[in-house]
Amino acid sequence: MHIDIITVLPKLIESPFNDSILKRAQKKGLVTVNVIDLRPYSTNKHNTIDDYAFGGGAGMVMMVEPIDRCITDLKSKREYDEVIYMSPDGTLLTQPIANELSMKKNLILLCGHYKGVDERVREHLITREISIGDYVLSGGELAAAVLADAVIRLLPGVLSDETSALSDSFQDNLIAPPVYTRPSEYRGWKVPDVLLSGHEAKIQEWRHEKSLERTRERRPELLKKH
Amino acid sequence: MHIDIITVLPKLIESPFNDSILKRAQKKGLVTVNVIDLRPYSTNKHNTIDDYAFGGGAGMVMMVEPIDRCITDLKSKREYDEVIYMSPDGTLLTQPIANELSMKKNLILLCGHYKGVDERVREHLITREISIGDYVLSGGELAAAVLADAVIRLLPGVLSDETSALSDSFQDNLIAPPVYTRPSEYRGWKVPDVLLSGHEAKIQEWRHEKSLERTRERRPELLKKH
Repeated sequence: MHIDIITVLPKLIESPFNDSILKRAQKKGLVTVNVIDLRPYSTNKHNTIDDYAFGGGAGMVMMVEPIDRCITDLKSKREYDEVIYMSPDGTLLTQPIANELSMKKNLILLCGHYKGVDERVREHLITREISIGDYVLSGGELAAAVLADAVIRLLPGVLSDETSALSDSFQDNLIAPPVYTRPSEYRGWKVPDVLLSGHEAKIQEWRHEKSLERTRERRPELLKKH
Repeated sequence: MHIDIITVLPKLIESPFNDSILKRAQKKGLVTVNVIDLRPYSTNKHNTIDDYAFGGGAGMVMMVEPIDRCITDLKSKREYDEVIYMSPDGTLLTQPIANELSMKKNLILLCGHYKGVDERVREHLITREISIGDYVLSGGELAAAVLADAVIRLLPGVLSDETSALSDSFQDNLIAPPVYTRPSEYRGWKVPDVLLSGHEAKIQEWRHEKSLERTRERRPELLKKH
């Protein structure tokens, strides 16, 4: 898989891709992530890529032309499955969408900043808009990093058995059960006996019950999707 | 405001706090963000902070003891309004929650990793659990960065008028209207005439209509909250 992230703040998302699972996935050759600085695609001598909004009001708007030039440049090198704009009013990211995107080959993620991008970018250059949640961030960069992380960890070979994605929350519309590790007692707080029993069937039963219970308590709407 | 982020991967979230708005907010003295490495709070000579799950199964679990020691250490220095665990099964982050948290003084954000933290951490040490969305990430670090960003940008003085948060999506349960900037025509794609008219009242009316229209189309459930 290949992911290009277009941003005016390339430094902002350097570290998440240079550490841990995302770094290892790149080292193993399972994914390449390029963070692309939009500024060199500016068409003016001051290298600006934003301007005041037509009709007035607070906030700068990212111009259509540099974004068009950047995307055209990328498209000259490979074919993209999706050109995704990270936007708070896009489709809410869910695990099924992450699963779906993890089957794609080439993705562009465009990060908005300031008041967002000129609407013509969204009308003509973007194939899909995704939001990571109902809240506003100072830019699309962290959203792109979140989307990339959610997708990359699903690629075959990225996670070892130890961190297997199969027992994650949401993969079966159930929240994961409580987990415990050593010591079995700490400050008087004890691990449930069943987990120490060694009785495999009872442990599985307990975990499934707790998953259901927790989902019912915390996220009942997930159960309706069954 | 003061935010402590506890993590086993402190390097992973270095860059988002060292650039752009989050960096400026810290420079202005409006917020301090400390990323705290959990590993030195380990109680064994190998500095491990995770162990196998009781009852078996894939995935390591973060131990209660190092986390307890770390939080106790932090609490000896200041009083915290909330000790928040970033977890996919926590309460979904929304703009009202970000608004609420932006009024707090001191926050701890605990990042889970691997299969999550020992349940006793959640029972006894955490005051609140927050999820940034219905998807699984390789760790809580990006989630903590997202939460911190959503909250910090709301602190008075962080955003300039140019990037004012008042006209953001979600602040009034409406999605922001389309925005346009120069040129008024690009590749035959035109800016709506009304925005070039200079007629302030008509522009406001058009924007409000477009906000409603877009909310109805994309996120009708937000309108029910009115």
